[in-house]
Amino acid sequence: MKKAVVVLSGGLDSTTCMGIAKEKGYSLYPITFHYGQRHNREVEQAEKVAKYFDAPEHRVVDVSFLQQIGGSALTDESIDVRQGGVDEDIPATYVPARNMIFLSLASAYAEVIGAEAIYIGVSAVDYSGYPDCRPEFIESMNETVNLATKAGATGGKFEIEAPLIQMTKKETIEEGLRLDVPYDLTTSCYLGEQVACGECDSCLLRLKGFEEAGAEDPIPYATRG
Amino acid sequence: MKKAVVVLSGGLDSTTCMGIAKEKGYSLYPITFHYGQRHNREVEQAEKVAKYFDAPEHRVVDVSFLQQIGGSALTDESIDVRQGGVDEDIPATYVPARNMIFLSLASAYAEVIGAEAIYIGVSAVDYSGYPDCRPEFIESMNETVNLATKAGATGGKFEIEAPLIQMTKKETIEEGLRLDVPYDLTTSCYLGEQVACGECDSCLLRLKGFEEAGAEDPIPYATRG
Repeated sequence: MKKAVVVLSGGLDSTTCMGIAKEKGYSLYPITFHYGQRHNREVEQAEKVAKYFDAPEHRVVDVSFLQQIGGSALTDESIDVRQGGVDEDIPATYVPARNMIFLSLASAYAEVIGAEAIYIGVSAVDYSGYPDCRPEFIESMNETVNLATKAGATGGKFEIEAPLIQMTKKETIEEGLRLDVPYDLTTSCYLGEQVACGECDSCLLRLKGFEEAGAEDPIPYATRG
Repeated sequence: MKKAVVVLSGGLDSTTCMGIAKEKGYSLYPITFHYGQRHNREVEQAEKVAKYFDAPEHRVVDVSFLQQIGGSALTDESIDVRQGGVDEDIPATYVPARNMIFLSLASAYAEVIGAEAIYIGVSAVDYSGYPDCRPEFIESMNETVNLATKAGATGGKFEIEAPLIQMTKKETIEEGLRLDVPYDLTTSCYLGEQVACGECDSCLLRLKGFEEAGAEDPIPYATRG
């Protein structure tokens, strides 16, 4: 059975990608990048999603080290280098070109397990501010990945798939509902609590998407009692 | 003063890159990737080299997490995920496309500090087995990096420089000697002891390079008493 690595955050978009890759006939190998503690909310969700899709393996990778590159330098160069796992809830600091970094790591994993495809749930529509969400980035990255890896260099070929790249949130949700994606296992809330706040930008975008898709979001929200 | 990020291992090639970038008029911002303990031999050497070249800042990044992707999966899938810093001398496990990963991280750092160039000491001559040492990889990566970053997307441009890519070890050493690169601060030994073994592949390649360049390697070797 052909394999696909799926960059899985446990949120709505990446979980939709799991459904899309499954429909294409892939055996799914999700990889989850997290900051700090191994068992935080996002990782728990990602694990549930991985289990739902019968993933043979689920890699969970601590990328706290990214803060040694991005975070502290952006805010204060005199800050000591933080070690991953010290703080319980280090926020996902902005790091330039994060999708490039994640796709590099996912590609290495794809080579290790002999996967043919790498799925990532980026959208150029809803998050157009990030250069590494654009189709031209994904295409270029795909070429680079194939030049960088043995599989690519010897005739095998990876495909980076970004099926949501031209979709609005509404369209993503419609696609996910068609595929019976378990949205009840996901949240998108920035706050990371058990119950989504319903007020942050991410919750609002999600709720608007469900509303436009004419569907009910199956997760509870603090604002809806 | 224009800035360059230099991927610096503390070995001969990357230290030569420091000399080359300095001659080009860059202020040098080395970034060192290491596995496990922060103060191992390679990191100490890299720190000395950074100091020699008056680097305003030296990022030292723990990439032990790479073993969560590459190492254990290659050898034994049942091995527990190892946490960085637990073992003192975890070997630098083979990870596919490591240069792609390192250049992604170096590019993120370059964007954070506003650097124009990223130097990496790969050679397609001496290490031709690795696909991500080839010129076509470097060129493709350069395009991808510029698409992935804000600096690239808004007209600024990074250049990935791999000045040793067509050089033999002899030619690299000749270039380094011309530039007064402090080879006494570097070692290339796989064993990572205070005194280089003189017998591993890396020591032998280095010694052969110095011999062919008609120069004396300034570091002590166990085999030379």
